Amino acid sequence: MTNCAKMQHGIVNVTVRDVRFPTSLEQHGSDAMHTDPDYSAAYVVIDTDSGLKGFGLTFTCGKGTEIVVCAVKALSGLVVGKSLQEIVSDFRGFYRLLTSDSQMRWLGPEKGVIQLATAAVLNAVWDLWARAESKPLWKLLVDMDPKQMVSCIDFRYITDVLTEKDALDILMRAQEGKQLREDQMLREGYPAYTTSCAWLGYSDQQLRQLCTDALRSGWTKFKVKVGADLEDDIRRCRLIREMIGPDNTLMIDANQRWDVAEAISWVSSLAQFKPLWIEEPTSPDDILGHAAISKALAPLGIGVATGEQCHNRVMFKQFLQASALQFVQIDSCRVGSVNENLAVMLMAHKFQVPVCPHSGGVGLCELVQHLILFDFIGVSASLSGRMCEYVDHLHEHFTSPVVIRDAHYVPPKDPGYSCEMLESSVQRHEYPEGDVWKQLLNK
Amino acid sequence: MTNCAKMQHGIVNVTVRDVRFPTSLEQHGSDAMHTDPDYSAAYVVIDTDSGLKGFGLTFTCGKGTEIVVCAVKALSGLVVGKSLQEIVSDFRGFYRLLTSDSQMRWLGPEKGVIQLATAAVLNAVWDLWARAESKPLWKLLVDMDPKQMVSCIDFRYITDVLTEKDALDILMRAQEGKQLREDQMLREGYPAYTTSCAWLGYSDQQLRQLCTDALRSGWTKFKVKVGADLEDDIRRCRLIREMIGPDNTLMIDANQRWDVAEAISWVSSLAQFKPLWIEEPTSPDDILGHAAISKALAPLGIGVATGEQCHNRVMFKQFLQASALQFVQIDSCRVGSVNENLAVMLMAHKFQVPVCPHSGGVGLCELVQHLILFDFIGVSASLSGRMCEYVDHLHEHFTSPVVIRDAHYVPPKDPGYSCEMLESSVQRHEYPEGDVWKQLLNK
Repeated sequence: MTNCAKMQHGIVNVTVRDVRFPTSLEQHGSDAMHTDPDYSAAYVVIDTDSGLKGFGLTFTCGKGTEIVVCAVKALSGLVVGKSLQEIVSDFRGFYRLLTSDSQMRWLGPEKGVIQLATAAVLNAVWDLWARAESKPLWKLLVDMDPKQMVSCIDFRYITDVLTEKDALDILMRAQEGKQLREDQMLREGYPAYTTSCAWLGYSDQQLRQLCTDALRSGWTKFKVKVGADLEDDIRRCRLIREMIGPDNTLMIDANQRWDVAEAISWVSSLAQFKPLWIEEPTSPDDILGHAAISKALAPLGIGVATGEQCHNRVMFKQFLQASALQFVQIDSCRVGSVNENLAVMLMAHKFQVPVCPHSGGVGLCELVQHLILFDFIGVSASLSGRMCEYVDHLHEHFTSPVVIRDAHYVPPKDPGYSCEMLESSVQRHEYPEGDVWKQLLNK
Repeated sequence: MTNCAKMQHGIVNVTVRDVRFPTSLEQHGSDAMHTDPDYSAAYVVIDTDSGLKGFGLTFTCGKGTEIVVCAVKALSGLVVGKSLQEIVSDFRGFYRLLTSDSQMRWLGPEKGVIQLATAAVLNAVWDLWARAESKPLWKLLVDMDPKQMVSCIDFRYITDVLTEKDALDILMRAQEGKQLREDQMLREGYPAYTTSCAWLGYSDQQLRQLCTDALRSGWTKFKVKVGADLEDDIRRCRLIREMIGPDNTLMIDANQRWDVAEAISWVSSLAQFKPLWIEEPTSPDDILGHAAISKALAPLGIGVATGEQCHNRVMFKQFLQASALQFVQIDSCRVGSVNENLAVMLMAHKFQVPVCPHSGGVGLCELVQHLILFDFIGVSASLSGRMCEYVDHLHEHFTSPVVIRDAHYVPPKDPGYSCEMLESSVQRHEYPEGDVWKQLLNK
């Protein structure tokens, strides 16, 4: 702690609100399994006695956000009364306090609603910490002493793959060249790909227009949603591949639509369009299924990507152990915040599998850019095979919206974790009492 | 449908209540990870226009039950307005309606709070169905046409191990000798083991007394909680083994306390007491970890048992594929009710791994006895290596409490799924407004 070393930042209140955007009205975000999402968030604000606030969220798809809100309220009792100093001086202990409460762990453990709520709360704590240090979160991580960083991670259940010493070794090795990589990021930004061109619910005309616009703006990597209808997918992939040409990168994403055999046969039919990866071919829980798919698709030069619904480090550990994925898609809101994502990034590095974050939704780009910047500067030291998802929606609701320049994420400069929303946006979109919803529900 | 074929049983209302028992006051249920559980339930009642009701629940450990209650309310919207006829004529479709709602599946999918809530709702639907047929649930299952049974199961994500045809074949083969096995169950009951003697929080004197009583009552199989302290475990296991003698069966249960290497070394130190199995040695998500532990302990003659926190059929599939368990511990409230447990029992049969249900908590014995009776009569046709957990708590709160005779579950005779609670018990234990809690919270 530097500037605010004398400030304890005692947490006096945690509030949480149910904020929903009616994205389903225009089929934004539509895929083979989520046909009509209303991008939403359980939005958390931490108040401290110093006046400093922390902002966090977890992403949801509309209905059921109130359940996550209820879970955040249940966790709040473990947070109020603690000080930031107290938390970060034993962050592993605090992490475990939230995830291993003797009564509440039955509801997970470390999965589903309770883990989403943990993410929202801890994202707000990390935001508070970065603000207390007057740094953007990625810079807080870059500057952090490796020993302190390791003390934030719960190694329970992953020591067979990553011990505390392994983690420390990785972080120490990455100290070399760190400043150069930070300078490079500030200069060039982190490479991104776009998913905004080819949601499943979009018409061919929309695809064409969005693709043309994206190419003009400098995008070179494109993701297409597939999985509902094979003939449709062939037509859409052909269209996109023709638009972007043979040298740009195409990825496809089935959002868990298939069983194992179906995934292999369906993707084989799309191999002609040279996708780099097939994302979420089957159940996010099916490690061995992903391993079988990976093995079958390797000869076609197609990798498997997954992670946005991979619920904790124990699952990621096994995906890596089983060679079940070739691209690790961390998510800023699915697992236990920065703490658990650090464990995942370190394990991915150990297995030399690139991290290519999941993003989009609402706030996910704002949050995850910090993690992937740190992954490059402080862990992997490589951009090879790496890129971060970008989706061009809902950024206008944030006080420090993500900045994209030439298809690269520009490192944020404002202190914090970039997920403070405009109070006016929150008020208008609160469910069901905000003006937007009052109007829609009264229709 | 027989008696009530003409009755649609239209569902007009779903209510859910937060019912908690202050079991932590006496350390009932204490283990290495759940040191002070208050056994609780999200308790569901379905009202129909015929006047017939369905009762269901999911088990919880106290704090956070309100989150499951909130999730049940969110699911209720998908249930009210349907009729029992409509549901059971396409039960797979109804199952998927609950588990794959386009917006809510993000909260799982099929795991954690939302899956616990699904279990509670579907348990009530199955109770309603059994009552409509005037049969105990196990008998409804035993008499069900295999084709109809298969139509209740969602095979998504498990067809690489169990297809609809595989399931039908297993059920058809088990038609042979079914009546004999039903008669045997009615005569002898289903073999049980007891966990009531050796909770972690009990004193040695309590252990001795409870063990003596249990031996007198005819118990021959005993489970001991371990994992907090090795020396303690050695003392407790020695004490129990001495009490029960070399011929009775001892199981040990670590409730997820260890990492993989620690599990292997710790259990090796307890091998001298000849446990049949080590239960939940590590994270319930760690399939490959359980596989490593299974492999290491096999030469010691100790099997691995797990399942009470295994959140869906996809996870059970992999545990079986990876030879990661030697005893499948289904739970009546963790996965998607009878529908998903049927899938698990059929997969276990395919791999020839015995099903030994998890039970205890509140209501779990009442519920799971139906499933294991059906497993014997209609699926496995074997008692070899099989037994059902029994815990002697909280049965007095049910209208049709479980009956144990000579350490065997006596098949229930009352129509339904046996989880209707006494209204007086519910009222007294509702949280936080019931008398029991008003008194405790005002202390």
